Amino acid sequence: MDKNTVTLVGAGCSKELLTLRGLEEIKKADVIVYDDLIDRDILLEAKKDCELIYVGKRLGKHSENQDQINKIIINKARENKYVVRLKGGDSFVFGRGGEEVQALLKENIPFEVVPGVSSCIAAAEKTGIPVTHRGVSQSFTVVTGHTASEKDENYQALAKLDGTLVFLMGLSNIGQIAKKLIENGKDKNTPCSVLSRV
Amino acid sequence: MDKNTVTLVGAGCSKELLTLRGLEEIKKADVIVYDDLIDRDILLEAKKDCELIYVGKRLGKHSENQDQINKIIINKARENKYVVRLKGGDSFVFGRGGEEVQALLKENIPFEVVPGVSSCIAAAEKTGIPVTHRGVSQSFTVVTGHTASEKDENYQALAKLDGTLVFLMGLSNIGQIAKKLIENGKDKNTPCSVLSRV
Repeated sequence: MDKNTVTLVGAGCSKELLTLRGLEEIKKADVIVYDDLIDRDILLEAKKDCELIYVGKRLGKHSENQDQINKIIINKARENKYVVRLKGGDSFVFGRGGEEVQALLKENIPFEVVPGVSSCIAAAEKTGIPVTHRGVSQSFTVVTGHTASEKDENYQALAKLDGTLVFLMGLSNIGQIAKKLIENGKDKNTPCSVLSRV
Repeated sequence: MDKNTVTLVGAGCSKELLTLRGLEEIKKADVIVYDDLIDRDILLEAKKDCELIYVGKRLGKHSENQDQINKIIINKARENKYVVRLKGGDSFVFGRGGEEVQALLKENIPFEVVPGVSSCIAAAEKTGIPVTHRGVSQSFTVVTGHTASEKDENYQALAKLDGTLVFLMGLSNIGQIAKKLIENGKDKNTPCSVLSRV
C-alpha cells in the first residue's frame, strides 16, 4: 500500500471476525489509529515499529474531538506514512467513517474503505437470532439506541415496520425505546431480546 | 472442529472480505455446501479431499428445495463429517440461515454460526456511501427488493422513515419500489443510488 494513504478498516466484533483484507492492511500499516471497541489482539498483528494511536471514547465522544481524530489521521498520512484507521464493527455503521472520508477528500488524501462485520447483525446472529427469516421478518432496521430521547428518530414509522428492529447501544434507554414504540402502535407483546456484551 | 457438526459461514462479498474464522473453518471442512453468490476463490482454500456440493440458484429458488438443501447438510453431518454451509454475505441476511438452523436443531445436530460481511452495508460503503452519517441518517433499513410486489412489506412505514433505505436485489423492481415510496409520502427528490455488481 502506498505511503501517504489511509485505509479505514472495520475490525469486526472480534479478531476472528476480522476480514482477510483487514488483516493484510493492519500488517502493512505504519500507523494505526484505533478506537475503544476493537479486539486488542488485532493490534498484535501490526509491524513491530508500527505507531499505535488510541483515540477511544473520551477523545471521540464529542464532535470537536472527531476533528482532532481527523487531524491525527491527516497529519500522519502527510508524514508519508501508511495509516490504518481501525474501528470496531464497520466504519460506516454509526462509526463516523463518513466524516473521516469527507475530511480526507477535502485534503486530497487517497483512501480506501474495508468493510467489517457489524454487531448490528452479528450480535443477534451469535445468539441464534436471524435478523431476517422467511415468513417472519422480511426486513430489518438498525437504529442507534443513543438517540432515543432525540426528536430525529421517527418512532411513528419505526413502530409500524413489520421487520426486525435492532437498537444498537440501547441498554440505557431501553425503557424509553419500548415506551415510544408501544405508544406509537407497536404490539406490547412483540417478542424482543436484550443483548449485552455479546 | 468435531465431526458430525455444521458451521454456517457467511462468505462476505469477496474472498478479501471473508473473516479469519470463516477461512479457518473452510480449511477444516470435510464437506462444503455452497451457494451461487460466493467468491469461488474461497473454495481453493478447502482441503484437497473436501467434498464441494453446489446448491445454487436453481436448487435454492423454491422452499421445497430449501428442504433438499437441509437434507444434504444433515445427511453429510450424519456421515460423521464436518460440514461447512457457505453462503454469500451473511447467512442470516436474506440467507435463509434461520431455516437451516431450525432443521439442524430439530435433528439435534450441533452447529455454529460465523457471521459475514453483508453486501447490505458493504456494497454502499465500497462506493463511498455510508449507511449512517451524523446529521443525515441516524438509522438504516434493509429490505429485500424481491418482495416489492408483495403485500407484506409495509411501504407506508418505509416511506416515513428518516434513515437510509437499502433495497437488496431490487433492480428488477426499481420502478415499483420508487413508485410505492413516493405514493406513500417519500419526497420524490430524495437522493438515491442504484448499485449493481459492486
